[in-house]
Amino acid sequence: MAGTGNLSAVLKKKGELVLEDTATPLPEKNEVQIKMHVVGICGSDIHYWLNGGIGDFIVNAPMILGHEAAGVVSALGEGVTTLKVGDRVAIEPGVPCRMCSFCKEGRYNLCPDIIFCANPPVNGSLRSFYCHDADYCYKLPDHVSLEEGALLEPLSVGVHACRRAGIRLGHNVLILGSGPIGLLSLLSAKAMGATRIIITDLDQGRLDMALKLGAHHALRVDTRDPEEMARRVEEALGCKPDISVECSGAEPSIQTGIYATKSGGVLVLVGLGPPTVNIPIVNAAVREVDIRGIFRYANCYPRALEMIASGKVDAKPLITHHFPLEKTLDAFETSRTGAGGAIKVMIHCDQ
Amino acid sequence: MAGTGNLSAVLKKKGELVLEDTATPLPEKNEVQIKMHVVGICGSDIHYWLNGGIGDFIVNAPMILGHEAAGVVSALGEGVTTLKVGDRVAIEPGVPCRMCSFCKEGRYNLCPDIIFCANPPVNGSLRSFYCHDADYCYKLPDHVSLEEGALLEPLSVGVHACRRAGIRLGHNVLILGSGPIGLLSLLSAKAMGATRIIITDLDQGRLDMALKLGAHHALRVDTRDPEEMARRVEEALGCKPDISVECSGAEPSIQTGIYATKSGGVLVLVGLGPPTVNIPIVNAAVREVDIRGIFRYANCYPRALEMIASGKVDAKPLITHHFPLEKTLDAFETSRTGAGGAIKVMIHCDQ
Amino acid sequence: MAGTGNLSAVLKKKGELVLEDTATPLPEKNEVQIKMHVVGICGSDIHYWLNGGIGDFIVNAPMILGHEAAGVVSALGEGVTTLKVGDRVAIEPGVPCRMCSFCKEGRYNLCPDIIFCANPPVNGSLRSFYCHDADYCYKLPDHVSLEEGALLEPLSVGVHACRRAGIRLGHNVLILGSGPIGLLSLLSAKAMGATRIIITDLDQGRLDMALKLGAHHALRVDTRDPEEMARRVEEALGCKPDISVECSGAEPSIQTGIYATKSGGVLVLVGLGPPTVNIPIVNAAVREVDIRGIFRYANCYPRALEMIASGKVDAKPLITHHFPLEKTLDAFETSRTGAGGAIKVMIHCDQ
Amino acid sequence: MAGTGNLSAVLKKKGELVLEDTATPLPEKNEVQIKMHVVGICGSDIHYWLNGGIGDFIVNAPMILGHEAAGVVSALGEGVTTLKVGDRVAIEPGVPCRMCSFCKEGRYNLCPDIIFCANPPVNGSLRSFYCHDADYCYKLPDHVSLEEGALLEPLSVGVHACRRAGIRLGHNVLILGSGPIGLLSLLSAKAMGATRIIITDLDQGRLDMALKLGAHHALRVDTRDPEEMARRVEEALGCKPDISVECSGAEPSIQTGIYATKSGGVLVLVGLGPPTVNIPIVNAAVREVDIRGIFRYANCYPRALEMIASGKVDAKPLITHHFPLEKTLDAFETSRTGAGGAIKVMIHCDQ
Repeated sequence: MAGTGNLSAVLKKKGELVLEDTATPLPEKNEVQIKMHVVGICGSDIHYWLNGGIGDFIVNAPMILGHEAAGVVSALGEGVTTLKVGDRVAIEPGVPCRMCSFCKEGRYNLCPDIIFCANPPVNGSLRSFYCHDADYCYKLPDHVSLEEGALLEPLSVGVHACRRAGIRLGHNVLILGSGPIGLLSLLSAKAMGATRIIITDLDQGRLDMALKLGAHHALRVDTRDPEEMARRVEEALGCKPDISVECSGAEPSIQTGIYATKSGGVLVLVGLGPPTVNIPIVNAAVREVDIRGIFRYANCYPRALEMIASGKVDAKPLITHHFPLEKTLDAFETSRTGAGGAIKVMIHCDQ
Repeated sequence: MAGTGNLSAVLKKKGELVLEDTATPLPEKNEVQIKMHVVGICGSDIHYWLNGGIGDFIVNAPMILGHEAAGVVSALGEGVTTLKVGDRVAIEPGVPCRMCSFCKEGRYNLCPDIIFCANPPVNGSLRSFYCHDADYCYKLPDHVSLEEGALLEPLSVGVHACRRAGIRLGHNVLILGSGPIGLLSLLSAKAMGATRIIITDLDQGRLDMALKLGAHHALRVDTRDPEEMARRVEEALGCKPDISVECSGAEPSIQTGIYATKSGGVLVLVGLGPPTVNIPIVNAAVREVDIRGIFRYANCYPRALEMIASGKVDAKPLITHHFPLEKTLDAFETSRTGAGGAIKVMIHCDQ
Repeated sequence: MAGTGNLSAVLKKKGELVLEDTATPLPEKNEVQIKMHVVGICGSDIHYWLNGGIGDFIVNAPMILGHEAAGVVSALGEGVTTLKVGDRVAIEPGVPCRMCSFCKEGRYNLCPDIIFCANPPVNGSLRSFYCHDADYCYKLPDHVSLEEGALLEPLSVGVHACRRAGIRLGHNVLILGSGPIGLLSLLSAKAMGATRIIITDLDQGRLDMALKLGAHHALRVDTRDPEEMARRVEEALGCKPDISVECSGAEPSIQTGIYATKSGGVLVLVGLGPPTVNIPIVNAAVREVDIRGIFRYANCYPRALEMIASGKVDAKPLITHHFPLEKTLDAFETSRTGAGGAIKVMIHCDQ
Repeated sequence: MAGTGNLSAVLKKKGELVLEDTATPLPEKNEVQIKMHVVGICGSDIHYWLNGGIGDFIVNAPMILGHEAAGVVSALGEGVTTLKVGDRVAIEPGVPCRMCSFCKEGRYNLCPDIIFCANPPVNGSLRSFYCHDADYCYKLPDHVSLEEGALLEPLSVGVHACRRAGIRLGHNVLILGSGPIGLLSLLSAKAMGATRIIITDLDQGRLDMALKLGAHHALRVDTRDPEEMARRVEEALGCKPDISVECSGAEPSIQTGIYATKSGGVLVLVGLGPPTVNIPIVNAAVREVDIRGIFRYANCYPRALEMIASGKVDAKPLITHHFPLEKTLDAFETSRTGAGGAIKVMIHCDQ
């Protein structure tokens, strides 16, 4: 199949995102080739497009974007026995080295040699054909759509955040920030047994979506005073939350997360903002409020798929917009501005 | 209030359960007096009635039965500040010593000096008035009924079983036995994130109730070959369950639990049967299937109450029969025989 | 015994520490009266003396100091069966409410109603006679001295820190700060299986003591650049430490702890400094370096006692100075200045 | 180097162990070739020799024995960067598939496709030259001998057993059985913080070795009554052990492990005996004594190496006998009979 057209969304450099044909890859040993169906746009895609980099990851050469992806197996590499041509699969975008201590201990997200789609200089999957290690492709049951398959990627972030938080049955949970990751953390927290969830955001439209998805309380952020916000959380919930999940990266929101959380609880940091933040560390320390960050996820795709496949969670309401691959720039623009209430924008590669 | 009539269900000796007035207790320091509203009948109550004892616990003197209870606070002892007269409360029936290492480490169910309702020689709560430590009484929100309050006791057993099992998001779970505890373990497992649950029983009626409560598969036990049952579980589920919860105590069922469970998983023993059982121990050991028993529960009432109060779980369908305190013998007889599809039989003390 | 002389070290107000007779207390129910033998001076005692308060804890009325204590049981309150007159005991200085959810779940150090010696307004134990709940007094074996019994208090802080850190067999550990708590954390970390330990301090004398107690590397802090210090730690150790235990409270030291710790590791905050600190939070978050504080300890005295009694750890070298109760001011002055290489200063109440 | 003599200890069939030249393997991608120095004899080697199989593992074709091994890197396969020719390495004998969920979650010992030395039909390492995946070879520091490197294999079993047991600082531990694995579990338990250890065996010589290695109490087994043995353990220790590690596989010893262990504790099953055993399951269940088996180990070699390299543990006293490869049959005979107090017998491949 090599040599046929492989339309791809290539970020040539900061601000310059174009569609062009790239070589169609052939699957190597233990890989499958996938005819891509759908790719969701992530905040990091937007960030690379607008800024040409995130932290230490700089786009120094043209790079194909996209990593929230699903498609149909179109060819098998040597040794692949777990999938067959025609299987509909969700693609976990990072493949670790399988040899370091992080890989051996089950924390492969921390593998220093992980290859991750659309993390420079690695090309992503927003194109017609793409090859990936077969064991990081998850076959979807017939009743799970490929769009839902693409959603497994950000859902896995929510699952990992809530697992790191140690959310258990009966926990009251605060989620700070109602973007896609905040909303998917909400769904994950509920599925793990959280009984009451309060969520915050600057934007009322997002809060309304959170309430629709099952949040019990929604608080609009209209002050930068973290202790005041913490008081409002406690007042609305009737108690301090056991767990807080910070999804905005904003300094006042992180501070709110500390003041708000019950003694002995956990604040998980999902959103990334400024590299250094002022933390009320004595408050956190003497109340034994643990602060835990996350980096992507490990061993979460199977759980996320079970959540969707079993009907325990319906994540489809997050998908608000669809574009064909040819209209990638429009899709990115919609995602960037949030126009039309955009939450998760999907690009279809095979229309 | 001492001296007024306190109608009580007293087990005089094996087989002799009578209603008679007992002294109305006054609350001591840190206690509340409760006007009892409803008490559920537990298998252990039936067992004491029919056999005069369970294992080392022998009824050597008359004992009031009942420990799945809820009522209304009618008087406060010295020092009580967390409750007031008129509060509707569920009663956690065991009060530990608060001083041993088990109590200090959060495993107070293992306290050797725990005082537990209707465990000889301690009197139970199936009567008109009863006193209990205030901090083991949980105030019910207005929308939670006292009947649901009484259900928190067996629900806490299910919650403890599933917590000891380590049920997490995405787990497939096998429940062996569909009696009240099996059904409440089913509800607990789902609330903790189990995505698919398969349940077994000898009785089709109980399996139908399990399906109604949300089990995904129900298997009638019609063989005593545990390896054959394990195969059927795997076939129905499409994989081995991560966790098995044994609620019958029967030897072949325990053996099934081991053969059926996925390597690296957990078998929790809730049901109690013969003191010694033949275990395929090498199969369990080399597949690292852990075997964990439970004894009652600790720190589960608050979680069980959150489950009910938040609407995450509806346990009311388990309540099938109601009797007034005066008809206690009829209630016990109904519970014993399971007549009329009896699952959980409630006795109302204040009608 | 009430009414006899009970010489006590009373902090009348900031800066004014005097010796005066106070009433000799009689043991209440479940308490024992203790003829005090020895009390160690803690940094917090010095802090109350010099500053009249720590954070929200203000000395508004005269308060007896001292909480690192051991003595001999001199009288039994009602109900005490676990101790007898003449028993030599170490005193765990905090007694929690035994009724809140923190107490029931085994985290009694977070109990909001805990009564803790020499935490205003609660009187401490630096006096001739003192009463305490019997179950928070630990009988010492004959071969464990009362001085070692008094050391169990700061040792329990080290044990709690290392337990919260999750130190396990084979871990490489960084300890920041070589004061008494840093040194006792060192001993605890080794006893829990840490195989190599690197420790830092501004003072070479303290580092020498750390090496004597078994540290493998000692680094003098001569830069305020936390990334540079982290590099030196990695260079000396040959790898990043799995766990860091911060015992100084200084901002650059906390920052060093984050930069230095291996991805997926833990930084425990033991030392307390300024309430708010600038944290390189993105570095910690994306490397999943958890930040955990501690507040005193729970369920650590029995472990600390086992450490000492079994000979696994010898903490006696930390005891550098002895004073009689009458010379309390000299003892405080020695502890304050660190004169003569003072690490742990002991006051003897019964000489 | 292929084609040169590669003297190998080949089990032709049950009872027939011969030395013969086999083809010298060349390292494939990510592998190293190792000039073998020393291989320890394990009970399983003896078992295959005498019985031609263990459980489902049957020797149907000639197989090279040996899996407790260390040697010197003699050639590098493609892609190997972490080792160089001349490096002295310990060889972890199992290489998992790296692709299944067990591998991804850090429990690769449960990988159904693991390739494990001297597990039929896989050849072992008791020969002159052997090839192995580079990332499962651990470079030894200069001061760690190759004999100690070979000991890392059984030591890893002890480490895994004690990790699964959850041994922590201050635990009192019972070890049932004083063979090599019991003794290495003893060393592991101490290194993890166990403060007092009691060990049992039928043989006084082994108990003496256990005392020499640091056991605090040694009990000779002279009754088959498990409750009586449990009483003796409690009497000698002064309390019930928190953790029991069963290393014999004998039914009465497993039963003793249950009766002896403290409520809330853990019994780990290391020794394998009859496939089915009579277990006092109600005693275990209602006291919440968990029963956990082990299968080999995962992620334990690095810890075992740290233990030895740091000097925390000295395992050398277990090595009692040495033979050259040519005398393999004598070595096996010595190991089988335990003649001359044989504990761990080493075969040197390069003399």
